[in-house]
Amino acid sequence: MVSQVEFNLVPRKRGFHLVTDEIIMNLPHLPEVGLLNIFLKHTSAALTINENADPDVQTDLDAIFNRLVQEREPYYEHTLEGDDDMPAHGKSTIAGVSLSIPITNGRLNLGTWQGIYLCEFRNRGGGRKIIATVIG
Amino acid sequence: MVSQVEFNLVPRKRGFHLVTDEIIMNLPHLPEVGLLNIFLKHTSAALTINENADPDVQTDLDAIFNRLVQEREPYYEHTLEGDDDMPAHGKSTIAGVSLSIPITNGRLNLGTWQGIYLCEFRNRGGGRKIIATVIG
Amino acid sequence: MVSQVEFNLVPRKRGFHLVTDEIIMNLPHLPEVGLLNIFLKHTSAALTINENADPDVQTDLDAIFNRLVQEREPYYEHTLEGDDDMPAHGKSTIAGVSLSIPITNGRLNLGTWQGIYLCEFRNRGGGRKIIATVIG
Repeated sequence: MVSQVEFNLVPRKRGFHLVTDEIIMNLPHLPEVGLLNIFLKHTSAALTINENADPDVQTDLDAIFNRLVQEREPYYEHTLEGDDDMPAHGKSTIAGVSLSIPITNGRLNLGTWQGIYLCEFRNRGGGRKIIATVIG
Repeated sequence: MVSQVEFNLVPRKRGFHLVTDEIIMNLPHLPEVGLLNIFLKHTSAALTINENADPDVQTDLDAIFNRLVQEREPYYEHTLEGDDDMPAHGKSTIAGVSLSIPITNGRLNLGTWQGIYLCEFRNRGGGRKIIATVIG
Repeated sequence: MVSQVEFNLVPRKRGFHLVTDEIIMNLPHLPEVGLLNIFLKHTSAALTINENADPDVQTDLDAIFNRLVQEREPYYEHTLEGDDDMPAHGKSTIAGVSLSIPITNGRLNLGTWQGIYLCEFRNRGGGRKIIATVIG
């Protein structure tokens, strides 16, 4: 049994953002046991799991990724869409756009400290589209 | 209902390659709603989603990964299989070998700018094996 | 048809560890054809696929990740839980905590050289919790 829904996340500024509640709010009815896949329909942002407590983790993750793939590298050829564009593509492949999370007792079975992040790598990314697919 | 097929991709040179059409050509019949998992049976290449339009993105992604994990680092111990081998293992874990994509209306529901990439990290990787599992 | 089980991995020291056998030992009955998702309920470790043969690959992967996200960067703000903590969060997002693997003929369909790794990024991470979800 598979159900599916497509929705937009509220636009967010560049950075790592906790979106667990916004994702859950948009999900269809969850089975007792199953698997949720959330898929981001973009190539300059990503979805990941990380700490849901201290906001400093979000700031530091953003700093880490900004250093992993820096802007204005002299070897970039894809430069017409802004300094933040090509690094955003690189970061998107590093963090990934497809995330599967187990469902147990009708709820997402995240660890105590886990939350779902939208990683927004563009300066002005707009409302990002998500497809949620529920198997169970 | 699960169906599955195993196939080989055409060999490609080192770099990031758009393989959306070749993947789709090899898929079994897709359900109206579901989830596709594609799994690469190798440890020195990867699968990812990225931009399907400007070929410069592929060149730049290759350059980004070549700088993230460089060849001939003095601390490498696994060196017998060539300068490109250990970096390929590192890059494979960074980009990942397992990718899940939603199926909607009997087709892969990719974003407008999304394509499926084979990331070939070896100089001569040969034909890479893929397992496609369709749930729906 | 979905089945699910939760279990703890034996605690391991910081580094990349082959855990294929320990994972398989804990799985429920596998269907003839299907998909396994393993999900790590933590934010400072990860699951990945990499080479199952030469132990030097594990040492070098650890070295690669220790250089990708280094300790004591002057820009870290999240520093109260130890020098290894914030880098562990960064590495966890790079390698990922959710891994899907195809099931064929009632067994995990890994490539000849593939094994499942626990990437332990903390100095003392303890026993890590895994949820295994089997679809088929």
